[in-house]
Amino acid sequence: MTGAEIERLVQALARLPGLGPRSGRRAALALLDKRETLLRPLAAALEEADRCVHACAQCGNFDSSDPCAICADAQRDAGQLCVVEDVADLWALERSGLYRGRYHVLGGVLSALDGIGPEDLSIARLAARAEEPAVSEVILALPATVDGQTTAHYIADRLSNCSVSVTGLAHGVPVGGELYYLDDGTLGAALKARRPL
Amino acid sequence: MTGAEIERLVQALARLPGLGPRSGRRAALALLDKRETLLRPLAAALEEADRCVHACAQCGNFDSSDPCAICADAQRDAGQLCVVEDVADLWALERSGLYRGRYHVLGGVLSALDGIGPEDLSIARLAARAEEPAVSEVILALPATVDGQTTAHYIADRLSNCSVSVTGLAHGVPVGGELYYLDDGTLGAALKARRPL
Repeated sequence: MTGAEIERLVQALARLPGLGPRSGRRAALALLDKRETLLRPLAAALEEADRCVHACAQCGNFDSSDPCAICADAQRDAGQLCVVEDVADLWALERSGLYRGRYHVLGGVLSALDGIGPEDLSIARLAARAEEPAVSEVILALPATVDGQTTAHYIADRLSNCSVSVTGLAHGVPVGGELYYLDDGTLGAALKARRPL
Repeated sequence: MTGAEIERLVQALARLPGLGPRSGRRAALALLDKRETLLRPLAAALEEADRCVHACAQCGNFDSSDPCAICADAQRDAGQLCVVEDVADLWALERSGLYRGRYHVLGGVLSALDGIGPEDLSIARLAARAEEPAVSEVILALPATVDGQTTAHYIADRLSNCSVSVTGLAHGVPVGGELYYLDDGTLGAALKARRPL
């Protein structure tokens, strides 16, 4: 029904997260319809990103410079190392603007089901970075899932011989969250970690 | 926070229908993460589509050949001309496999609000095609919106001097649709167009 070139474009788009076969088709049509404003800028941006953007050899963040802008920023606290699962989580923390230390991107979490072991993640490099004299705290900002917390415990164990303090994000009621809609696990964690006001 | 190259990629992705700033960011990360399987195939597909795919000079469909595969297909009924708003609607009809005639893509519908007049659409070309001796019926498969139906009436009026019969899609209860959830307009149209069983 449609040419092979259009089909290939639809399939390449449908593989993106957030798009599927149907919305991939819609996106392909929009791209073909608006070549100057949609298709060519996207093609150029892809080419440029592929050429310029690399993972930072130090922390694993994506940037066009290596070390990345965060690792190279002398204003940021070299004493704190925030461990995140992937670059998306790093971006989420950066968006909040509340953290002024450095990062370490693991590249995933341990998962027996998916066959992801410690050697598949940048844990050895994290252990090496934690040994650096400047580093005083490793903050494990890993997902509050079973795999995420398994990974956090594994790393805490692995770093127990270092002189750094290892901390994790607090669990509790999300700000603005209503108790009624909260799951039991979060409610239990918030109750257990209650604090004097 | 992120490099200019990444920001440009995020913005180019966020402009696609179905994606926004947040999902554009997610898609950009996935692309940077999986260069061999996501980024490069997409870049190649975009380049190829831009180079090979053009609007058919006859009907306006997108294809790598001109006239397009549908216009060139001698098996298809040259007597029927189905008028659609855009290529997405053409694809929807093709997907159904129920129509074996040819198409005419208008490139939009008349809209006083958006300032789209008859000269902005391929209506003059449609009138010329309707004059061809082979064409016996023009089927107006335009959206059942105010603008779509205004356009249908305008075209029917414009073609009233041709010898072709001008028809429109039937309105009624969608197959599988429950009356209870149907809007009054559709219910009224279905009632008005009731037929003997």
